[in-house]
This record gives sequence, C-alpha cells and structure tokens, in this order.
Amino acid sequence: MEQSFLAYLRGRCRSLPQVTVGIGDDAAVIEPVVGQQIACVDQIIDGVDFLSESHSLGDVGYKAMAINLSDVAAMGAVPTSALVTLALPKKNATRIAGDVYEGIFQAATEFEVAIAGGDISTYDGPLAISVTLLGHVPAGGAWLRSGAGVDEAILVTGAVGGSIAGRHLRPVPRVKLAAQLRQLVTVTSAIDISDGLSLDLDRLLAKSDVGTELRIDSIPIHDDAIELSKTSGRTPFQHAWSDGEDFELILTMSQSDADKVLAEDLGVAITQIGKTTSRTGLWKLENGRHERLSPQGYVHGS
Amino acid sequence: MEQSFLAYLRGRCRSLPQVTVGIGDDAAVIEPVVGQQIACVDQIIDGVDFLSESHSLGDVGYKAMAINLSDVAAMGAVPTSALVTLALPKKNATRIAGDVYEGIFQAATEFEVAIAGGDISTYDGPLAISVTLLGHVPAGGAWLRSGAGVDEAILVTGAVGGSIAGRHLRPVPRVKLAAQLRQLVTVTSAIDISDGLSLDLDRLLAKSDVGTELRIDSIPIHDDAIELSKTSGRTPFQHAWSDGEDFELILTMSQSDADKVLAEDLGVAITQIGKTTSRTGLWKLENGRHERLSPQGYVHGS
Repeated sequence: MEQSFLAYLRGRCRSLPQVTVGIGDDAAVIEPVVGQQIACVDQIIDGVDFLSESHSLGDVGYKAMAINLSDVAAMGAVPTSALVTLALPKKNATRIAGDVYEGIFQAATEFEVAIAGGDISTYDGPLAISVTLLGHVPAGGAWLRSGAGVDEAILVTGAVGGSIAGRHLRPVPRVKLAAQLRQLVTVTSAIDISDGLSLDLDRLLAKSDVGTELRIDSIPIHDDAIELSKTSGRTPFQHAWSDGEDFELILTMSQSDADKVLAEDLGVAITQIGKTTSRTGLWKLENGRHERLSPQGYVHGS
Repeated sequence: MEQSFLAYLRGRCRSLPQVTVGIGDDAAVIEPVVGQQIACVDQIIDGVDFLSESHSLGDVGYKAMAINLSDVAAMGAVPTSALVTLALPKKNATRIAGDVYEGIFQAATEFEVAIAGGDISTYDGPLAISVTLLGHVPAGGAWLRSGAGVDEAILVTGAVGGSIAGRHLRPVPRVKLAAQLRQLVTVTSAIDISDGLSLDLDRLLAKSDVGTELRIDSIPIHDDAIELSKTSGRTPFQHAWSDGEDFELILTMSQSDADKVLAEDLGVAITQIGKTTSRTGLWKLENGRHERLSPQGYVHGS
C-alpha cells in the first residue's frame, strides 16, 4: 500500500514555506532556522498509550502530534515540521492509516506544522505511531529543565488531574502560550506534565539542583479529577498530584516575572504553586512545620 | 525501564558539537546548519525487515541507522544527528535495547552522527526501530529525483543483487562517496537502491520525466547475486535487476562529468549503465532494435 498511500499524502499535505521538498524523495529538504533547532520524538502504541477499540483513530493521530507539540512548547520553541512513522496491523491497514492521518493533519493545520516525511509499514502487531517534531528557539533561549535557580516562582498552566477521563487524547499543547510567555518574561526552566505533576516537577527540580516549598492548596485541580474521585477511591488532590498526561507546563521564573504573568490574561489559567528552595526535594509548609512529599506518577511503558 | 536506560544512553552518547542538548530534556537542542536541512525517517520491524531469530541485534541496530544514512547520501547531504524510537517486546526488553544500541552507536561513530534523542516503549509486539536522521546540504544543492535531463549519463555505485545473502544488514551507506562526488562534479539527480535497481531507477526517471537506454551488459552484478543464482533458479542478472536493499546510489550527470568520475579512483567502483533519453521508460538497444524492459523489485511492507 505504501506507494499509493504516499501519493495520497502528498496530495493532502499543505505546502508551507519551511519545507521545500516534502514527501516523495529520499529525504525532505527543510529551510534553515534562525537560532537553534529543536527536535524530539515520541511514540504511542495501541494497548499501551491508547485503545483502538474505544478511542477514535483521528483522536489517536491527534494525540501522537500533540504530545510532541507539548515537548516543543516545554522548550519554549516554535514547531515547524514533523516526520511520521506508522506501523500498521495488516488488516484494514489503509483505512487505519487514513483515519490516523486525519488527526495528524488536524494538529498540523492548527499548529502550522508541515508534514515533511514519513514511513509506513504493515506487520503482525498493534498500531504504533512515532512522530518526530522539529522546531526552533532563539539561540541560547531554550527552556531547559536545568535552568531554575533558588527563590524563584513555580507556576503551572491550566489545571491537572483526571486526564484519563478523555482529555489525554485531545490535549492542548501550550505552544501559543509558550510564545506569549517568551515575549513577556524570562522563563528559567520548564517541563511538560506527561507522567504526573509531582513526578515531572521532581525531575525539573533535580535537574536544576533545587527543591521546592509547595503551596499544596493552590495546586489547580481539574474538574475531571473531582469527577473521577467520586468513583476512584482517591481524592481530587491525589489525582492532581500523580495522574499523567495533563500536557500542561511547569515553569520557573523570578518572582517579579511571575507577578507580571499572574497579572496578565493570557487566555489560559496560570497558577503559582510554590517557590524553589536550596533545600532539595518536595516540601510543604504546614503549621510552621516542613513535611516532605514524595513524587508519584505514571511512568509510561516501563 | 525507560528512565534508567535513558540514563545509561546519556552516558554512552558521545558529545558532538552539532548537538548542544541531547537525551534528557523535553527535546534536543541542535545547532543551526549552513545551507538547507535534510530529514528522513525509516523504520525496520522484526519479521518484516529482519529476523531477530537469525540476525544479530547489533546488526539490526546498525541497519536501522544505515538505511537512513543511505537516504541522506542519496540527497548528497552530510548526516549530523539522529533520533531513535524503539518499540520493544516486554520479554528481555532491556537486553534487546542494549544490543540494538550497540549497532546504533557503531554506525553513529563511523558517520559522526550524534544521537540527539529517542523514545522507548515496551509492548506486546515485535521489535521495531524507527530512526529519524537529520543532515544538511548546500542551499539549493540537494540531489532530487526530479533533476535529471535528457542525454545525461546514468551511473550506479558498487555492485547490485543478492544482498539478502547478508549484505543487507551491514550495507555501506555512500555518505563519503556522495561528499567526494559533490566536490568533483554536478550530480543532477540521485536515488538509493532500496527496492531494486530497476524499480528505483524507474522511479527516478519518472520523477525527472525522462527515460533511459540501458547498456544491460554493463550493469555491475554483485558476487552475491552470482552465488545466489546457483540455487535460486534465477539468473545473476535477474537478481541484480530486481533484488532490493543494495543501498547503492543511482546518479545522473552530464556525460563530461561522468567521464571525469569514471577516470577517478574514489575507492568505490562506479559504473555507467546507460544514458537518459526523451523517450520515457526503460529500454535496451540490441541488434539495432529497442526493447522495453519492465521494472521489477521488492516493495517493502506492502
């Protein structure tokens, strides 16, 4: 099926100025970037990251793009082009590929990303989608996990917890918000929440060699977490603390920059959940006493 | 396994100047290129492109890199960095990943490619490896399939046929040769032979809207094709004409440039197999009569 499907894809792919030669040659030819280039890859597999029996394949294709767009946003970068690998079960391969690509095209259109290339195989296995996303940042301006200093504000975008109720398939990668923040302030470090607020926060802090004093009550709990807690036997807070696939951003910056962000309406809720400290680890301050918290989360495919 | 294995990979990855931030953040930070950027992705899957029961996993890892390096060579480009996705069977996942990465590291070292990022999942399925390779060419200088004109020489590197005897696992991507040719002459079009000499030649000619008059007897037949013909019931020529995975290059250039190339010793045999014509299709001239040839080859994963 590959040749005819690739011909179909060539017809469907929008021309964007960043890609000079797209699908149909030995490789894509992409225009050089100003600044530095960003590249990441993430795959999702049926039975591990989604269930083709209950999820729409368009949603699945969208998710494959969105999780990578979220990584690019977490670098404070602008996405430009994507390469897509599909491993398809032999049965109904062409229909499945077509359905998945509907979601991929939708995300590509929304975020002005060119589909620069791809590969398609059929095999005796479940649907697997791997997306490589390319983008760019101003030179030296990538938001690394290692950049947080002491006494900085820790912010989180949106609200977290309970994404499994359905939100995880159609996350909103914070690409636009990242660009707005870059205009407004200096973000010192960032990570996206894929494995859970506390686990990803712990990773960022460890990379920056700092700790945090959290304002536990200020953590923005998503309505999905509250709804889920009615049947899950866990509290809304526990969902917010450890559920994965929120695809929100955790950001650090100076307190004065944080105050600037918190005073603006950027179209997405942004909440300060604490500040960084020289004492490493996650801590909360309650009744004048420090209590250590343990990071918990979902580690994918482990 | 992902976190601990990624930590192991970080330790094993060589630092190269083209990648500023490699494995371990949300995305890699890569230095901008001079000219244009090249990107391609190709996956290989157990049971489709190799057999883990009979092939060494180091060879398999090497192949996953080499087939992409061959695509980059076919653009006349210099490879710089790679992103690797592994989908691993749950049983022995860490050992398999380690063995595959030995071959990946070997190819990366040989071709000065930085491993910039990756993703690893375990699942109920066969080993699948997807590699995205990034590189660069001088602006406007990519060797496209569409660039051949009429009355140009058609050259092929190395010798073809019979790669299934083992060569397909350890191909020699013509990266160095491509750089030498770029110094010496103007290549007007190129493709690498993945699906068979005649099929890939036909694709290149179709993209360039030209045909060819082939000197059938001059096609360089690999010793593996001769050996294989003793048991396959096919002639050495048939193997050379239609076997896949040679990963040699088909190139077009002016006859005077071809004469220059043929007079040089570039360390790899290069053979002229015909010239392009305005009459489309593959033809041979025998006893003053034109006979049409049909392209044959192996279409992967179809």
